[in-house]
Parts: sequence; C-alpha cells; structure tokens
Amino acid sequence: MTDRYASFVQSGAGRTLVKRLGLPDPPRLRRHTPGDPLLTGPALLGAATGGRLAEPVGKILAFAGVEARDPLTIDADARFGALVYDATGITDSTDLRQLYDFLHPHARSVLPSGRVIVLGAPPAECGSPREATAQRALEGLTRSIGKEFGRGVTAQLVYVTPTGDDGTLTSLESTLRFLLSGRSAYVSGQVVRVGAGQAQAPADWDRPLDGQVVLVTGAARGIGAALARVLARDGAQVVALDVPAAGDALAAVTNEIGGSAVQLDLTTPEAPTRLAEHLAARHGRVDVVVHNAGITRDKTLGRMDADRWDSVIDVNLSSQERINDVLLERKLIPAGGRIVAVSSIAGIAGNRGQTNYATSKAGVIGLVDSLAPVLREEQISVNAVAPGFIETRLTARIPLMVREAGRRMNSMSQGGLPVDVAETIGWLAWPASGAVSGNIVRVCGQSLLGA
Amino acid sequence: MTDRYASFVQSGAGRTLVKRLGLPDPPRLRRHTPGDPLLTGPALLGAATGGRLAEPVGKILAFAGVEARDPLTIDADARFGALVYDATGITDSTDLRQLYDFLHPHARSVLPSGRVIVLGAPPAECGSPREATAQRALEGLTRSIGKEFGRGVTAQLVYVTPTGDDGTLTSLESTLRFLLSGRSAYVSGQVVRVGAGQAQAPADWDRPLDGQVVLVTGAARGIGAALARVLARDGAQVVALDVPAAGDALAAVTNEIGGSAVQLDLTTPEAPTRLAEHLAARHGRVDVVVHNAGITRDKTLGRMDADRWDSVIDVNLSSQERINDVLLERKLIPAGGRIVAVSSIAGIAGNRGQTNYATSKAGVIGLVDSLAPVLREEQISVNAVAPGFIETRLTARIPLMVREAGRRMNSMSQGGLPVDVAETIGWLAWPASGAVSGNIVRVCGQSLLGA
Repeated sequence: MTDRYASFVQSGAGRTLVKRLGLPDPPRLRRHTPGDPLLTGPALLGAATGGRLAEPVGKILAFAGVEARDPLTIDADARFGALVYDATGITDSTDLRQLYDFLHPHARSVLPSGRVIVLGAPPAECGSPREATAQRALEGLTRSIGKEFGRGVTAQLVYVTPTGDDGTLTSLESTLRFLLSGRSAYVSGQVVRVGAGQAQAPADWDRPLDGQVVLVTGAARGIGAALARVLARDGAQVVALDVPAAGDALAAVTNEIGGSAVQLDLTTPEAPTRLAEHLAARHGRVDVVVHNAGITRDKTLGRMDADRWDSVIDVNLSSQERINDVLLERKLIPAGGRIVAVSSIAGIAGNRGQTNYATSKAGVIGLVDSLAPVLREEQISVNAVAPGFIETRLTARIPLMVREAGRRMNSMSQGGLPVDVAETIGWLAWPASGAVSGNIVRVCGQSLLGA
Repeated sequence: MTDRYASFVQSGAGRTLVKRLGLPDPPRLRRHTPGDPLLTGPALLGAATGGRLAEPVGKILAFAGVEARDPLTIDADARFGALVYDATGITDSTDLRQLYDFLHPHARSVLPSGRVIVLGAPPAECGSPREATAQRALEGLTRSIGKEFGRGVTAQLVYVTPTGDDGTLTSLESTLRFLLSGRSAYVSGQVVRVGAGQAQAPADWDRPLDGQVVLVTGAARGIGAALARVLARDGAQVVALDVPAAGDALAAVTNEIGGSAVQLDLTTPEAPTRLAEHLAARHGRVDVVVHNAGITRDKTLGRMDADRWDSVIDVNLSSQERINDVLLERKLIPAGGRIVAVSSIAGIAGNRGQTNYATSKAGVIGLVDSLAPVLREEQISVNAVAPGFIETRLTARIPLMVREAGRRMNSMSQGGLPVDVAETIGWLAWPASGAVSGNIVRVCGQSLLGA
C-alpha cells in the first residue's frame, strides 16, 4: 500500500541516484492539515481585458489570507504559490495571446506543489462562436501546463457561470479554496464547472462540514475509511455503511471518528428501505450521500460468467440508483443536499478485462449527467469523482511492472493516496459547494489515460 | 515514415519471434479499396427488447450486401465480420445484462479487423435518468471491448437520435458503412452521434463525393496530400491549397488527381477574401471545406517566444475562423455543405512542450461545438477529426523511444497512416453524412492517451 520507490527518491541518497540515472522523480506532494495556509507563497493574479472575475477572486483570496500580487509591480525573481488568471475577458482566439503574456514570464517561478488556475466562461453560455471557441481553447492550455510544470504543480480550468460579483463570490469560494489548498494535491488537468446553484459558506473553513449528516457506503476500508476520517475531521456526523462481513473493520473506523455504523448488504432488495428507515429514525435526514461502495470482478468478456457481470453492475451502479430513488422519494435529502458518487478512470477510458466494471463506472457518469439537472430545482447537487491509480489494498495486488506503469504514468509520477480522493469528495459535499453540480472530477494526478 | 517493426512482425520469421518473446504484435489492418465488400464475414445482428433500430439497420446491411445472422439460429463455431447490437431498448442498468448475453458467447468469434458496433439512444435525449444512465454506461463497455479484443477489431458506440424508420435509414447509413468498412481501420473506441440532419445517399457508394467541390488546406504533403487523393478517388473535384513555398509538391498532388491548386498563405489578411473570390469565380461554391493546414512550434511555455505562440494559434485556429466567416458570409457553402477541421489528441489531452499547439487544437473542438448548432438550420455540418500517432514526415523526426511508445500505446499496437485520417474526413464530408454534426472523432487506434 506504499510507494517505496517514491519514499526512496525523496530521501537524500535517493535524490543523488535519481539525478545521476535520470529515473522518474516523484515530488513530495503538499497535502492538507487543518490550520494550514492555502498556499506556500503569494498568488500572482492577472486578468484579460474586460474580465469579470478579478474583483470577486481578489476578495476570495483576501478572505483566505492569500497575498495577491499584481504582474505590473513584482520583482523579476519573485516566486509564487499560485498563478491565477481571469480569462473571462477573452472573446476571440487572437486574444489568447494575453494569457501567454501573463504566463510566459512566470512559468518557471511557481513554487513546488504550486497552483495554476485559469478561470473562464462556459463555452456553451458564450455569446458568439468566436468567444466559445477561444474559451474552449483554454482547456488545451491548462492540460498542457499540468503535464509540463512538474514538481507537484497542478493546473486547472474553472468555467464560471456569470452570476454578478456577490453571486460569484459565494459560488466560487469553495472551489478556489479547494484547488489552491493541499486538499487537491492529486487533482490536476481538470475542468471544473461552477454554476449558479445556492451555496452556503461555513462559519469556519477548517470545519466546512460542521453538523452535516453524511452517509458513506463501503466505509470499512481503503478509500471509504479515508473518506469517513476526512469528513469527520471536517465536522461531519458520519454514518458509515458496509457489508456485515466487514463489521469489525467498520466498527474500528466508527470508533476512531465517533461516527455510527450500519451493517447492510446493498444488493438485497430491502436494503434501500432499511437504510432510509435507519436514517429517518436516527437523524431525520441525510445531508450528503457518498456512493463509494464498489467491487471488481475482472475477466475478459469471453471468459466472464454472468455472475461477475451482474454483481459488478448491481453493486457499483444499480444499487446507487435504488438508494437515490428511495431517499429522494422519502424527502430524506433536504435542500442543500449532496450526492457524490465514485466513478473511475476505467469508466472514462474503458479497460481490458473490465467490461463489467467500466460499464458500471461509465453508468455512474450517466447518473450524474442525468440527475444533476433534475435535482437542481431542489438545490441538491450531484457530482462524481473518478480516481486514477490510488495506493490501496486492491492496487497493491497488481503485478509489479503493471503497477509501476500505472503509478508513474501521470503528471505527479506517483500513485495517489485514499486521502486525496476523500478530500475531493469532501469539497463536493460541502454546503459551500452548491454551485458545483454535474461535474466529474478525476483524482488521478493527471493520468495519461483517458478517452 | 514506415513502421519497420510492424512489417517485420507481419513476416513469417517475425511472427515466430514475437510469440516466443511476448513482443507487441501489431496486426495487419484491413483497409479500404474501391469495390471491397464492407466486411470479410457475416454480421451477427442482435437487439435488446423494445429496440427501435433493428429494422433500419437490417435494411442498411442488406442494401450493403452484408449477410446478417440471427443469434438464435447460428452454429456454435460461426465466425463473424461484425457484431452489431441495437441497445436502444435498454432503459435501466439492470437491462444491460441483455448486451452481455449477446456479446459474451461471441466475444471470441470476431474475425481479424472485425467490428463491434453498439447502437444506443443519446443520453441527453432519454426520457428518464435511469434510461440515460444505462445508455451512458454503454460507453464503458465499447471502450473496454476496443482495448480487449485485439487483432485489429474496432469497437464503437453510435448514439442515434430517433427520427422514425425511414429517417434512421437515411441518417445512419453512411456512418454504418464507414464503421463497418476498412475505411475506419484506425478508428476505435469512439462515440459517434447521429442526429436528425438532412442526408443525401449517393448513386454509387464507391463514389460518395461525386461532383462535390472540396477545398483542402495544407494539401501539399502528409495527411493533406493523402486527403486530396482519397477525396478525388471518391469522386470529388479537389481544390488543393498550400503556401507558395510548397508549390511544387502541391502541383505534383493536383496533377496526380486532376484537381486544381491554390497557392496562398492563409495567415495574410487578404487570404480569406482571395480564397473566396477564387472559389466563386472557378466553381461558384464550395461544398466541403477541410481545414487541414497546421504547424507545430514546440517549446515549454517558459522558453516559448511570442512568435511561436502567435504563429501556431493563427495558422491552426484563427485562420480557420476567418475563412469560415468569409465563406459563410458570402454564401459560398450551400445547404448540404460540410466543414471538417483537423484537431489533435494534444487538443484533447494537452501535451508537454505544446501549450500553443494544444490550445489551438482545443480551440478547433470549440469551433465545432459552437458552430455546429448555429449552422444546423442551413444544413451545413461541422465536425473535426483528432488524429493520434500518424506515420508522417513529422512523426518520423520524433526520437526513437518516444516514437515507439506513441506507436504502440493504442489498441492497434501501431501508428496510423495518413490515409486513415483521410478516410475519416471523407466520411464526414459525404452528402450522405448530413446527420453527423458536432462530432469530434479520434483517429488514433484507440490511443491510451486522453483526458
């Protein structure tokens, strides 16, 4: 479950050897601890002419204690924790030059585990094809920067729906805080869409889930256990669910975090009703539902028996649908509620030997796409994360060479940790993230794999 | 420009060595020659209960001379040129089992360079979240099959907008013929959307571009020259354009195919007008515009001078916009017209050292996304292809090890040929393909790289 090579590389002797031999050089990623500042240095804040986000973004940075610098008044040797650029003023491909002018002189002045964030206008909401084209072009830029900058620097494109300055302040703050912080250590090369949904800022940004009732399925081990810990750390009352066979491991997690445990096999016909009754009786509601439970039963399609197909589709996809339907029908998810599902890179790109798993995980993307607009009126957001190579019990069983390829084939040259997936799910679950819905966010260190 | 390893592997001595050592085993791909049958064996045609496409698809196969077999009446040892499945009847994730039941027994009976085609309903047009989820799940299945089946077998998902049986026959035929044939040799793991646009079947499917006036930019060499040849072979009057410096190579191409040559630097301010005037005077119209001209000027962002940025954005993106605008404004593209642009995998995934190129090629995707709905009323389709690793003069210059990785990291274990890109552009340009608009089709052998 550990990446011994990365530990070695980050040691003194390792560093020398890696440089001599030109071996892959996974950086030590900056991860979040409560109380951490958002960045390790000031942010350089720029904007294209006519942009609409510089003011709200400036305010968000100030609230968050980040020092923002102006490109016109900095020293030549200044170093930055982040480069943040408001590109909403770009309305034509020829205007993209402004972004080059901002980034080019500072491309090599971003600190390790620094951040590059470009804020744009959603192409589908642009007024002309020329503007939509230029805004869509930004994606090629940020994805390239993610692959180019190295040293744990991440790059993201955030498309922000216009909602006026105050609206933007409220809707964008949680996303900007997440992306700047160490919480997003293993998230890079992503496109995040911030819409116009209702968001509720927390009293304390170190406890963004204070008082929220959060259900986590598959919580006994791996990503689920990390999730339970992170959500509890951030203030949530965690209801941790797993199959009866994992009861001991589940109890260990809930004892550690002070949450409650539910032993339930989600594939049984009565499971959704029993779960709904439990939540209604104990909490009267569930603010956040995290569909994390999942299984793999790998075989090539010609050798796959029907049971492998059925069980994977049922646990990873159909059971999520059944639970959502019952919880929504019984109005147990209130306004401001959140549904977060776990998809996978395999659901995006497909994978040899995983027709069943990839089908189920692509279905999860369909669930998000189709449910998010339906639940917008009720102010319930629906999102998914798609993990890449994460160091768990499951990946530890992959043969060495395949495992090494999976680990290194991303912009961080290393596998992610369960906590990286947990932090990303956490952000999507915050009351402050109500404007983020219908997103599929990869937690993959910008894996080369994709569709 | 050739893949010597693939040639060796396909020889007698090579085959033995490859098997002994477990080396990559690139199959010889089936490519199109006029007069070829669509498939090398019968098609197995299945459908989920309640599907709406079995009848029109059956007719298309019959028109095309393909023998269609019924899963209930075949021998156990039958082998197939294609597995074709109408999945439009699937309205719930539990129904996906029907697709498994169809594919599982025949997964190993597909002939080399065979085809797997799943036809679905566009998720965004589905009546319920459950249906949309199940339809979206199909993508994980077909992408996995593409990675799993090997031997040059391709797998695609085609989402078909409901237009009634006759409408579907007309709108779907060109796409089905393309995907079954050797024309799509290097296209796999793709999702194609067939909408409700007007389509016009040709008198002769071996000359699907008969009488069409087609402009090809960057036609002197590489993919552009292959394009000019393929389009002329298929009946088009080709207007081949390139810069004056490539005049000799351009003349060689047009002499060979009987097309006309235009020497023009597209980055000059007067180029769009001059081009429009030339087309108006010579042909009175241009039915198909293929924006193929493109350049690379690679450097990491910190080392990239402004000229590299500007020239790549201008040639690859802004000049396309300027030409479209002038040709559309002057009504030179008639109803039934086609715009096909060349994007790139780098525009989808980003690439180290190519911030300028990836930005321009992502912009091309934006151009398609934003222009397609605007031009739908005028019955002009807009699509793009995104080539992966194609064997050209440019890729021949890539250092050996990087080149080998690029070549082998796809489901075909080999680079594509310029003709593969050309055939795909050809299909999108056909009068018969009017129902295909707003698509980005990768020609990459299902490269592992993506976003």
